[in-house]
Amino acid sequence: MTKPFLLYTAGTPNGRKVSVFLEELKAIYGTKVDYDVEKIDISKNTQKEPWFIKLNPNGRIPVLVDRQRENFVVFETAAILLYLEQHYDPEKKLGFDPVKQPNEYSEMLQWMFWAHGGVGPMQGQANHFHRFAPEDIPYAKKRYTEETKRLYGVMEIRLRDREYLAGPGRGTYSAADINVFPWVRGHPYAGIESLDEWPNFKKWFDRIEARQAVQAGFTVP
Amino acid sequence: MTKPFLLYTAGTPNGRKVSVFLEELKAIYGTKVDYDVEKIDISKNTQKEPWFIKLNPNGRIPVLVDRQRENFVVFETAAILLYLEQHYDPEKKLGFDPVKQPNEYSEMLQWMFWAHGGVGPMQGQANHFHRFAPEDIPYAKKRYTEETKRLYGVMEIRLRDREYLAGPGRGTYSAADINVFPWVRGHPYAGIESLDEWPNFKKWFDRIEARQAVQAGFTVP
Repeated sequence: MTKPFLLYTAGTPNGRKVSVFLEELKAIYGTKVDYDVEKIDISKNTQKEPWFIKLNPNGRIPVLVDRQRENFVVFETAAILLYLEQHYDPEKKLGFDPVKQPNEYSEMLQWMFWAHGGVGPMQGQANHFHRFAPEDIPYAKKRYTEETKRLYGVMEIRLRDREYLAGPGRGTYSAADINVFPWVRGHPYAGIESLDEWPNFKKWFDRIEARQAVQAGFTVP
Repeated sequence: MTKPFLLYTAGTPNGRKVSVFLEELKAIYGTKVDYDVEKIDISKNTQKEPWFIKLNPNGRIPVLVDRQRENFVVFETAAILLYLEQHYDPEKKLGFDPVKQPNEYSEMLQWMFWAHGGVGPMQGQANHFHRFAPEDIPYAKKRYTEETKRLYGVMEIRLRDREYLAGPGRGTYSAADINVFPWVRGHPYAGIESLDEWPNFKKWFDRIEARQAVQAGFTVP
């Protein structure tokens, strides 16, 4: 039987955000949110081929196709998480109801955009200059590793008296956390050896890393 | 009389996203959405002072305070736009209803995250290496100017048969457009002299630049 979703993805932090979120949904709702995976070989630039550009003009993984809603296509990781949250998490276990919990919903969005415009792109640049750039450019390595560390420090401030980034009281696990966790997991690639200098942030990291659905999401593809 | 909102901002693309959006709301709803402006002097790092970090732990402008909703604080430009859209655009003139128009709403989010994780940070890096970096690093200049051009090319693909980024048919003007326009307006700072190589994208740019509310938003602060 055809599964409800088709996920085009690869083994990158952005890919893993979506597979982790889908695994968390599966742990709650079962096969109603099961998904087929099509691995995209980014080393061969498959995501730049015309058939893929029709799905996502930006030529990037992941892309989600919703077979239950006339093959509606969603790109951009955080937009995929919010789409899944709106349509397939009726109990709002991984997010907040925009109408009944507007402030928590806004906080979730704030931390999602914060990570999407900060941690992702800046840590991505750190990765590039540490691992892929054809020239050794100490200025750029330092710039992006330091900016990534600054951003981790912002999470440390937020998590000083909280367990999760959004939600009432000490917070509840949500798309805001899932949206940034896979990047943080890749910190060694960005010139950051350990998370020890941010103790509350590190506890948050360990708490999320221990989740079964998170581990399952990291096996995809 | 105290105005409904207080906006901490500065004359940057991110600041202008919010003042343009507020000016567009004012053009529709009048003084109900009027706002006080407190200019933050980013050359003096005012946004890093403890009182500001309490508002936004990331230490960045803009920040919106909603006096009508118990001084609720919103940071991250795109999250501010979505907050204003949810609470203060009941006619959905600058966005889409998530329940009644879920696909258009998702498309708007997709293009907002796309710009927030792409155009903003990458063009920001181009600005840095062209104008502020203490060393001349041709590799980095080229990397970020070319990535910004690639991203403009993605908008050209999207706008080939459309007037605006999201919405049915040829699209309707929305937060998705306002969210990226102020960055595009700053293209000369990123090593891009003109938009002529992207004709449909340039038409979109001219269409938005001609709007009175956009011009008003660019005078703030």
